[in-house]
Amino acid sequence: MPMSAALKSSSSAFFGHLPSTVSIGTKVTRNANMAKLQAGYLFPEIARRRAAHISKYPDSQVISLGIGDTTEPIPEVITNAMSMRAHSLSIVESYSGYGTEQGDKKLRAAIASTYYKDLGIEEADIFVSDGAKCDISRLQLLFGSKVKMAVQDPSYPAYVDSSVIMGQTGSFQKDIEKYGNIEYMRCIPENGFFPDLSTVSQADIIFFCSPNNPTGSTATRDQLTHLVQFAKDNGSIIVFDSAYSMYISDDSPRSIFEIPGAKEVAIETSSFSKFAGFTGVRLGWTVIPKELLFSDGFPVAKDFNRIVSTCFNGASNIAQAGGLACLSPDGLQAMSDTIKFYKENTKIIVDTFSSLGFSVFGGKNAPYVWVHFPGQSSWDVFAEILEKAHVVTTPGSGFGPGGEGFVRVSAFGHRANILEAAKRIKQLYK
Amino acid sequence: MPMSAALKSSSSAFFGHLPSTVSIGTKVTRNANMAKLQAGYLFPEIARRRAAHISKYPDSQVISLGIGDTTEPIPEVITNAMSMRAHSLSIVESYSGYGTEQGDKKLRAAIASTYYKDLGIEEADIFVSDGAKCDISRLQLLFGSKVKMAVQDPSYPAYVDSSVIMGQTGSFQKDIEKYGNIEYMRCIPENGFFPDLSTVSQADIIFFCSPNNPTGSTATRDQLTHLVQFAKDNGSIIVFDSAYSMYISDDSPRSIFEIPGAKEVAIETSSFSKFAGFTGVRLGWTVIPKELLFSDGFPVAKDFNRIVSTCFNGASNIAQAGGLACLSPDGLQAMSDTIKFYKENTKIIVDTFSSLGFSVFGGKNAPYVWVHFPGQSSWDVFAEILEKAHVVTTPGSGFGPGGEGFVRVSAFGHRANILEAAKRIKQLYK
Repeated sequence: MPMSAALKSSSSAFFGHLPSTVSIGTKVTRNANMAKLQAGYLFPEIARRRAAHISKYPDSQVISLGIGDTTEPIPEVITNAMSMRAHSLSIVESYSGYGTEQGDKKLRAAIASTYYKDLGIEEADIFVSDGAKCDISRLQLLFGSKVKMAVQDPSYPAYVDSSVIMGQTGSFQKDIEKYGNIEYMRCIPENGFFPDLSTVSQADIIFFCSPNNPTGSTATRDQLTHLVQFAKDNGSIIVFDSAYSMYISDDSPRSIFEIPGAKEVAIETSSFSKFAGFTGVRLGWTVIPKELLFSDGFPVAKDFNRIVSTCFNGASNIAQAGGLACLSPDGLQAMSDTIKFYKENTKIIVDTFSSLGFSVFGGKNAPYVWVHFPGQSSWDVFAEILEKAHVVTTPGSGFGPGGEGFVRVSAFGHRANILEAAKRIKQLYK
Repeated sequence: MPMSAALKSSSSAFFGHLPSTVSIGTKVTRNANMAKLQAGYLFPEIARRRAAHISKYPDSQVISLGIGDTTEPIPEVITNAMSMRAHSLSIVESYSGYGTEQGDKKLRAAIASTYYKDLGIEEADIFVSDGAKCDISRLQLLFGSKVKMAVQDPSYPAYVDSSVIMGQTGSFQKDIEKYGNIEYMRCIPENGFFPDLSTVSQADIIFFCSPNNPTGSTATRDQLTHLVQFAKDNGSIIVFDSAYSMYISDDSPRSIFEIPGAKEVAIETSSFSKFAGFTGVRLGWTVIPKELLFSDGFPVAKDFNRIVSTCFNGASNIAQAGGLACLSPDGLQAMSDTIKFYKENTKIIVDTFSSLGFSVFGGKNAPYVWVHFPGQSSWDVFAEILEKAHVVTTPGSGFGPGGEGFVRVSAFGHRANILEAAKRIKQLYK
């Protein structure tokens, strides 16, 4: 029905009653899924509190160990490649326009051969992205609103929040701090941070992050074998987030595809952010094996290819040139040096809290330390450490109800800051 | 219900019957919205046909005037800024990690002052992105599946395809070449490529691109004033795509916000791709004025802020440094020179087809020429030009049923290629 004529007289009259500077709401209904979301996304909320603290104490020299933000420069072997690629765009012979949405062929091949050699993952299974967080949302678009998902509790908040935005969930239930129709798989010290799968209900999509953000715990080969079998038994798809896999220093699997049969039940998403310091450069990838099929036999990768073609236009060509340099022998060595540095930071943080008598988890295979404050509210602990030590952490409950009573301390920082933060925390809790 | 135990025995038996190399489908149902999509996204399909042609005629020296892909180098004033930013990331003092999801403050301010001076659009209304195509999908996420949208017919296929993916539409109806529950606003020579709004049904979201892709037509000030009034009367939100606005050489509005009252009914999305040759670098922006409200009075910008915080992590910092250089006086002059070059290409293409007696549209304010082949199928014309002139165009029907009988010819190309394509086309149709 043409609404224009029908509404013109009444709405003109309506507008006529108000001065032109007053905003008139449209008739478009707010997306009910957006309205379900609680407060702000966690990290901007922490940034807001940090800013408020600084304006209260302008001379306090706040140290941020909150958001897991890299602080060390990117090795020159990598930035040189990006500088050269940028320069090459000014030359007619080396200029290029649109890349393929799936990413540069050489980079896809290098990712496959560097991280998935002998695992049966090929160049064509790799989709280069502008980061794992962005790909998580594109995966949600792929799955649509009718699926039910499971997450580790606690876990990186983008899994749950993107699920809410896609309309997969019910409302937030304040009493239990959970959204309806999401399976929260509790990961606590008592179960070694691996969920008791016998208590987990059927879910279509299982988000699983190892090394885990925020707990820093890493699933063993046996545990991941169990998880893959669980997915097979239930017909679920695992979305395995391996953004921190280069921090693994024991023999825990760095990829879900190290587990036999995983190609039939798993997607893996990863990132250059925490390896190469690309948090601001933006580069990641997602692996969707051709063996992964929907219930009707349709390949999941084929639909994801359509998503990236329609909703994305590829990662920046300059970032991709940096990614390729990361995977050169010199780049891999340089990244490994940076990781070694952050791992030394991690040890300082672990030792600090341990020496004060706290139960400390994570840290071994991850740049995150998960400190227990039994019986206390995470936000209260966060506030106390900020107020008295001027150190920003992340409240565990921001990652889900299973994180209550913990704070996450990030090991990303300059050494002097880590040492100073350790000193202040020792002062606070001595 | 814990499914693991219940299913284990039967599924183990099931797996036992098959060799381990056979893929077993999961039980996850394919997203029905994905299944509604027709064939491939338009431009990858054209790339496929181009590749097939080249393998059939390896020596044919195919000229691509299909996908609107920039070909001229990026001015050095811009690439130098990107090279320097990349290099700065290797230095501890100038390294930075995560940027804000909304974009660098300086870049937001520069976009506001360069393109929206005196239009009441401020830094805070600007969201920097990795390109307009990506933002269109994020806008769809924002609106959710319950809205009804309207598009110009023909139009850039990402509007319709992202709407299908979000579940806003019905199925594709082959007889009329349209998806259900989308309002197709016909834009044809007979109505000067501006829809007859009196025949347009109520829609929540109106996608409107001017200068238009593919027709190259540009809405006048009167027409856009009419469109804004139509949106106000119906309570709709306009998503105005101004990706080609720097190609405007007459007094047509370059922004929807030149129209009084538009801030209460419109979003604008734009891009550095076609201005600065950033198709591969990836940078764009979206303007959501604080005056734009949902029916319950909730600001649209506030929900979009949540979307970019949760589903995006900002554009590459290197690309953003390039964007800032684009908006310097030297950068603006350099971009304007490149646009002048492409506009000369456009004139060559317009003159070629005009001299052959074709009805030719667009081209004046846009890098696209819209050529009429009355009574012919667009794909047949596309195939003929490719087969006989080895020139890739884009079939008009790929942009919607209103594009049938047209092909779009892109003016992005080196001068020698444009002249050669013109020569071959004159041969073909002489």
